Amino acid sequence: MVKRVAVILSGCGVYDGTEIHEASAVLVHLSRADAKVQMFAPNADQMHVVNHCEGKPTEEKRNVLQESARIARGDVTDLAKLDVSAFDAAIIPGGFGVAKNLSDWAVKNKDCTIQPQVEKVIRAFHKAGKPLGMCCISPILAAKILPGCEVTVGQDKECEKWPYAGTAGALKEMGCKHVNTDVDKAHVDVKNKLVTTCAFMCNAPIHKVFDGVGVMVKETLKLA
Amino acid sequence: MVKRVAVILSGCGVYDGTEIHEASAVLVHLSRADAKVQMFAPNADQMHVVNHCEGKPTEEKRNVLQESARIARGDVTDLAKLDVSAFDAAIIPGGFGVAKNLSDWAVKNKDCTIQPQVEKVIRAFHKAGKPLGMCCISPILAAKILPGCEVTVGQDKECEKWPYAGTAGALKEMGCKHVNTDVDKAHVDVKNKLVTTCAFMCNAPIHKVFDGVGVMVKETLKLA
Repeated sequence: MVKRVAVILSGCGVYDGTEIHEASAVLVHLSRADAKVQMFAPNADQMHVVNHCEGKPTEEKRNVLQESARIARGDVTDLAKLDVSAFDAAIIPGGFGVAKNLSDWAVKNKDCTIQPQVEKVIRAFHKAGKPLGMCCISPILAAKILPGCEVTVGQDKECEKWPYAGTAGALKEMGCKHVNTDVDKAHVDVKNKLVTTCAFMCNAPIHKVFDGVGVMVKETLKLA
Repeated sequence: MVKRVAVILSGCGVYDGTEIHEASAVLVHLSRADAKVQMFAPNADQMHVVNHCEGKPTEEKRNVLQESARIARGDVTDLAKLDVSAFDAAIIPGGFGVAKNLSDWAVKNKDCTIQPQVEKVIRAFHKAGKPLGMCCISPILAAKILPGCEVTVGQDKECEKWPYAGTAGALKEMGCKHVNTDVDKAHVDVKNKLVTTCAFMCNAPIHKVFDGVGVMVKETLKLA
């Protein structure tokens, strides 16, 4: 049976949208597994636009759906139209778009709220017993919506290789079990059907991120 | 010996910049081969900005270098600063950015001119006997600068799988030898040290594009 997977995007570019290489890796691994993919994104303004050369916000306005269409080669649907019954699993790649456009984590950290369409979709997949795959910073969405879930965002001790290790501490404060996991592996929370991998939370060569995302995709499909 | 590879980008998004998944595949395969990568792009306005949901130009202005930085996660250098002596090879992913920002092929087809920095760099790599890897529409750059070279843009007979097969005809009119090649393979012009693969010129599943780009990267590194 072909698995039908919804991939939820949040823009295009690590600092204000979806991390491009995580999204691309998700699509390559899903394609190789012969999954049927449909991409979605909120039809809403981005929190802001970041000049990726300088890492600083600009005065521009951009739309999350339109920018996500760059990753989707035009084939992306308004998240408001996602019908959970039409899918076997959902995958959410990372990037600051998750913390800026799918939630306000970038501003409020563990006191964040989740964008209502995103929250609705995650709750619906979870309630239907359908697996969720997440990478990089995306597990914050699960942490907020599924209290007590097991996730990984890599390691919980900060160093050059793990510049964002503080996130693990925030997830623990939210009541999650954080499981230290290397970049080319994924953690499976069997009870919640939740699969996570750290991706670019680790300062690793891109092919290791690609491989870790591959494990996440494979384990997500296994649960579907 | 670690191979040093310059990757030349043309924006971010298939319809007005670099094709995102081709660039990502190039980076994953180079990383796995332990190559040292530096990314470059022209510091210039894009020809135009395309709304990727609708496929239509907008009134916006965007800069090729800044948008390329989305793919490069901030680490991209002005193409004007590319020192060919510091590299063993160059790779140019496809996307309409090649035909709009690295040349004016999108407007003038085989009568196009190549952006002067791009032309200079390609001539310098070729003169130094250093290999060039190209995919999708990028081989038009080689066709213009290295008359008589052998390239592939996939197949020369148009059908649903090969919607852009007309490009092969244009390349032949320019005096190139076009070699029909499937999406998961690459063609090597040993004399010119030029390696090409069709990528998204083929209407193929993304993992096949990924694999074809992998062959292109491997053959390019072999010649370096």
